[in-house]
Amino acid sequence: MEFDFADLPREARSKLLHSTIVPRPIAWVVTRHAHGGTNAAPFSFFNVVSTEPPLLCIGMAARTDGDKDTLANIRRSGQFVVNLVPMAMAEAMNQTSAEFGPEVDELARCGLATQPSSNVDPPRIAGSPVAMECETFRLVDLDQGGAVVLGRVLAMHLAEEMLLDPARQYVDTPRLGLIGRMHGGGWYARTTDLFEMPRPPKPPR
Amino acid sequence: MEFDFADLPREARSKLLHSTIVPRPIAWVVTRHAHGGTNAAPFSFFNVVSTEPPLLCIGMAARTDGDKDTLANIRRSGQFVVNLVPMAMAEAMNQTSAEFGPEVDELARCGLATQPSSNVDPPRIAGSPVAMECETFRLVDLDQGGAVVLGRVLAMHLAEEMLLDPARQYVDTPRLGLIGRMHGGGWYARTTDLFEMPRPPKPPR
Repeated sequence: MEFDFADLPREARSKLLHSTIVPRPIAWVVTRHAHGGTNAAPFSFFNVVSTEPPLLCIGMAARTDGDKDTLANIRRSGQFVVNLVPMAMAEAMNQTSAEFGPEVDELARCGLATQPSSNVDPPRIAGSPVAMECETFRLVDLDQGGAVVLGRVLAMHLAEEMLLDPARQYVDTPRLGLIGRMHGGGWYARTTDLFEMPRPPKPPR
Repeated sequence: MEFDFADLPREARSKLLHSTIVPRPIAWVVTRHAHGGTNAAPFSFFNVVSTEPPLLCIGMAARTDGDKDTLANIRRSGQFVVNLVPMAMAEAMNQTSAEFGPEVDELARCGLATQPSSNVDPPRIAGSPVAMECETFRLVDLDQGGAVVLGRVLAMHLAEEMLLDPARQYVDTPRLGLIGRMHGGGWYARTTDLFEMPRPPKPPR
């Protein structure tokens, strides 16, 4: 069955993309408001897109009344922290997806402890096993509002117990227990059902 | 533990990003060579980043000897098809990650049947339950080679049996059986261990 995207209502396109492109990693993004309070919000239109330079990509749709707080703060400051989300923090992450007013310090309101960052102003979430301090590398504005943000990773914080061998940067990925975004209003996937498939040998040319 | 990315060797940065940002959805990208043969290759630096306009983002690193075939073909033609990868096609997908010479028709070589596209020249992979015909929206070149490709989705093909209600675009996402990329040379996750978490109510302002 073929869906021609030019003929489809906006909501139908959105539903098809959300329900097929899975599992999506989740960026729990912390930014600083102009008044100094923190904002936190989850985004699943997210991934690493380059290691040289180290770049993350996050799609941030517009609200009907303009930029989301996260995007407004990134436009102003050029700084943000991407925290990754383990199963144990799923509930807390979900709470921060509610739209608080910009006057609310969301991390304080949600009872989430923070740690200061080394290279950027926004703090990281203390309970997250992986956090990346980022600055804007490129911001692609969309005609319909919102933007695609390319962020350069300046530093990564990793919970000590998640490292198998810190000197060789070996991470115990399954132990991170990260979750991915699936379909509909609220479906997620645990990263528990794993399998290994070695890369094929180089074919004769 | 903090890793300052400015001080870290290239390979260490790469290892940290690959082993923490999970699970990553997989784009199995089909392009057309100048001589008419098809190229197919999997990319896990991939996600949907906007629904209005409908945009996918794919990070394509450079090889030491220049662009990968996929990126070279996208630069030339501005067209590609993103196929999603179910568990049943994991082996076939993995085979196409081998670096065949550009003279090889990879889909034919790997015994993968194709179907013609409606809006673009490259075909889609017949066995994939979801395929998206795309054209280049923006291409962000990276100083070190390679590029981040933003592609606009022109049409989506969905296997009929994956639709619960075609008129309302309801997709049976778990039934798609898609896999996500995890850490290391060859770890993947099945999307089988799911849970639901409804969005929180709008907080009082």
